[in-house]
Amino acid sequence: MSAPTKYLLSEDRLPKAWYNLQADLPQALPPVLHPGTRQPVGPDDLAPLFPMSLIQQEVSTEREIEIPEPVRDVYKLWRPAPLIRAHNLEKALGTPARIFYKYEGVSPAGSHKPNTAVAQAFFNQQAGIKRLTTETGAGQWGTSLAFAGALYSLEVKVFQVRVSFDQKPYRRAVMETYGAQCVASPSNETVFGRSVLAERPDHPGSLGIAISEAVEIAAQNDDTKYALGSVLNHVLLHQSVIGLETIEQMHMADTWPDVVIGCAGGGSNFAGIAFPFIGQALRGEAPKPRIVAAEPAACPSLTRGRYAYDFGDTGHMTPLAKMHTLGSTFTPPGFHAGGLRYHGMAPLVSHVKELGLIDAVAFQQTECFAAGVLFAKTEGIVPAPEANHAVKAAIDEALRCKREGKAETILFLLSGHGHFDMQAYTDYAAGKLTDQHYDEQALAKALDGLPQVA
Amino acid sequence: MSAPTKYLLSEDRLPKAWYNLQADLPQALPPVLHPGTRQPVGPDDLAPLFPMSLIQQEVSTEREIEIPEPVRDVYKLWRPAPLIRAHNLEKALGTPARIFYKYEGVSPAGSHKPNTAVAQAFFNQQAGIKRLTTETGAGQWGTSLAFAGALYSLEVKVFQVRVSFDQKPYRRAVMETYGAQCVASPSNETVFGRSVLAERPDHPGSLGIAISEAVEIAAQNDDTKYALGSVLNHVLLHQSVIGLETIEQMHMADTWPDVVIGCAGGGSNFAGIAFPFIGQALRGEAPKPRIVAAEPAACPSLTRGRYAYDFGDTGHMTPLAKMHTLGSTFTPPGFHAGGLRYHGMAPLVSHVKELGLIDAVAFQQTECFAAGVLFAKTEGIVPAPEANHAVKAAIDEALRCKREGKAETILFLLSGHGHFDMQAYTDYAAGKLTDQHYDEQALAKALDGLPQVA
Repeated sequence: MSAPTKYLLSEDRLPKAWYNLQADLPQALPPVLHPGTRQPVGPDDLAPLFPMSLIQQEVSTEREIEIPEPVRDVYKLWRPAPLIRAHNLEKALGTPARIFYKYEGVSPAGSHKPNTAVAQAFFNQQAGIKRLTTETGAGQWGTSLAFAGALYSLEVKVFQVRVSFDQKPYRRAVMETYGAQCVASPSNETVFGRSVLAERPDHPGSLGIAISEAVEIAAQNDDTKYALGSVLNHVLLHQSVIGLETIEQMHMADTWPDVVIGCAGGGSNFAGIAFPFIGQALRGEAPKPRIVAAEPAACPSLTRGRYAYDFGDTGHMTPLAKMHTLGSTFTPPGFHAGGLRYHGMAPLVSHVKELGLIDAVAFQQTECFAAGVLFAKTEGIVPAPEANHAVKAAIDEALRCKREGKAETILFLLSGHGHFDMQAYTDYAAGKLTDQHYDEQALAKALDGLPQVA
Repeated sequence: MSAPTKYLLSEDRLPKAWYNLQADLPQALPPVLHPGTRQPVGPDDLAPLFPMSLIQQEVSTEREIEIPEPVRDVYKLWRPAPLIRAHNLEKALGTPARIFYKYEGVSPAGSHKPNTAVAQAFFNQQAGIKRLTTETGAGQWGTSLAFAGALYSLEVKVFQVRVSFDQKPYRRAVMETYGAQCVASPSNETVFGRSVLAERPDHPGSLGIAISEAVEIAAQNDDTKYALGSVLNHVLLHQSVIGLETIEQMHMADTWPDVVIGCAGGGSNFAGIAFPFIGQALRGEAPKPRIVAAEPAACPSLTRGRYAYDFGDTGHMTPLAKMHTLGSTFTPPGFHAGGLRYHGMAPLVSHVKELGLIDAVAFQQTECFAAGVLFAKTEGIVPAPEANHAVKAAIDEALRCKREGKAETILFLLSGHGHFDMQAYTDYAAGKLTDQHYDEQALAKALDGLPQVA
């Protein structure tokens, strides 16, 4: 066996500022529109949902936004996160490529999500907010916000998609251990939830519905704000700490990636690893790697969605954003990477895709689990099902290098561990896991139903 | 909130040698006896079960035993592990004490167990061994050996206590993802397993039975050896890396512990944190902290067991060791900290207890879970049920300091995270978890049945 090589930054190298890609874009991001007027929203329109500090980050074009010292102090509980060279995986593949992965599973929640949860909890606490609402699917994001809420003494109320609430009680148990309240969505606690239940009392829920419920509660209470775990600009901003660290670590490893890979659902972990590399290239400071977003074939917003204005939620309470979308009424089939089951893609990720700065690929779940099992056996870490999409893309690139005889450097983000997802691995090992295919007609209908924007 | 402060060693400070307490003992450890002859065993008696390199470590009185470079390379995947000051917990308790914890949950298996699993797999591979057998209860140890086996391309066969095999399928899924074979014990694969099943076909199993099965398989096959996750001297030796790192980190924090705490089941994580501190004190190089082993009141070998020769397993295939034991026929009640449900205590830990070098306390499980929930809410990490015993002891010490107005420094080992144990937290939150009490008569009977040794 070959031992992995770890590149670890000392704490004083933890970035002091987040990186904002909006500063370096050759074309500005299309504006976000008010759901009623369909006119560009101003900061005041967002004030019921977010504290002004986060709204300012959302629209900022400053390149660097300072990470407050108290946030850096909490980051230090697990950051800087390691960059690791996967020697054993390289050997198993027989590839001349060098494979590096940045590992975010070292956080207390087991994924990259606390990078923004801690920041959002901090800025809300600074603004005097007492309570945060949010949605969660499988539970990575809800767990992370519950963790951050506990540290800042904020109440956290999580609307969890009912099917996950029922099937994955352990994530809920973690949220509740941190002191958060966890409610199955659709719920009777909101007007929107009741309207959904009135139509279908046994509705399994969806992220779009849970977002509507969380937004409704936040909008109605002055001491309550809403927190989103992906998609928004300020969320992607907070995740830039991943890529900023990785750039330093690639220098430590004395190499530079030819390819940078992340899995993509809402887009935040992908942006976290990719945007700092894109920014350096746009500023002419470093060669531009090829950047690859790996998404699920069963919910393929980047590869099969339309670039159009759409709502972020099912209840159509959120502003309209221009993004790659499958339509807010699209319901993806029930594959295991719950963190990637969202109809839209972060507007910033969609924008750089339109600008030709990134590529996207889509994979079925069984090939992703096969990649994850190989990774576990060779490198010792069981990846989250979401992260398996990045592992699969990295392995494909490494095999391409083998065919082409190229010693390229491949970098991917391992966004979290799979310790809460072992049922999926059990099903995979038993041959019970099948690839999932969305209904083409339902997708066409959802795309037809996209809102009309002048 | 107060952010935690983390003390992180750079990789070049990873210890180059394990520390062997046997070098500094004022009295030598009583010999291990052959189960048949009841005479002290020699290295050859142990050769069917372990490679000679590990047998030499088992009996060595050298103070330092070099950590092979390939083992250090694997350790670096997660080591050096962080030492963290629990500011927020201190504040919640209102204590003048300073509380530090060493965190071993950062390993890929989520606990301290890989420290010895990697070493044992390495030495077996070096000796040309093809396959390892072992037992596991809840699964922390089985997972760790499966992880190490995957890295060194060794087959791993795990006999898992049937009740855990049935109730905790996710740990099994991790072992199988790493490529290990996992069998419910008692099984039909061994003579001993068949004998147990013949008497009681629905036997729930026990660690003692699983050890017998694993030992039986190893003893019969030249290319197969046995690996134990605790109790033995060489296992405790490998865990010394924990305390060695911590001593350096206490210097970084510019303080020295007045109290050092670890939970104790078989004794390996406790010894890992405690023995290097005991050694420094025995050599007169540093003040001796008070050392506290925290064990479960439902399986209290150190506080209620007898210091006597006993078997390590139910089938009486292992050598006899002098240790604090509840008797090899003692069956502890079904509390949640599965890693602490063993009838005996490591001979070296028992020996230092007899020498007056350590104290022991015992806790019921509900008070331990209450401590764990407070820790999760204040420090952000959900501890394993086993580790909650150490958390509880640390909190008690901190409250004592509050009563006495003393600003002592309290150090405890957080041996692993609880992500695989959320059912226990769910039960605790629902008020379903009750304290468990062993049967006094059954204990008396088990102690009466201890083997006679001249």
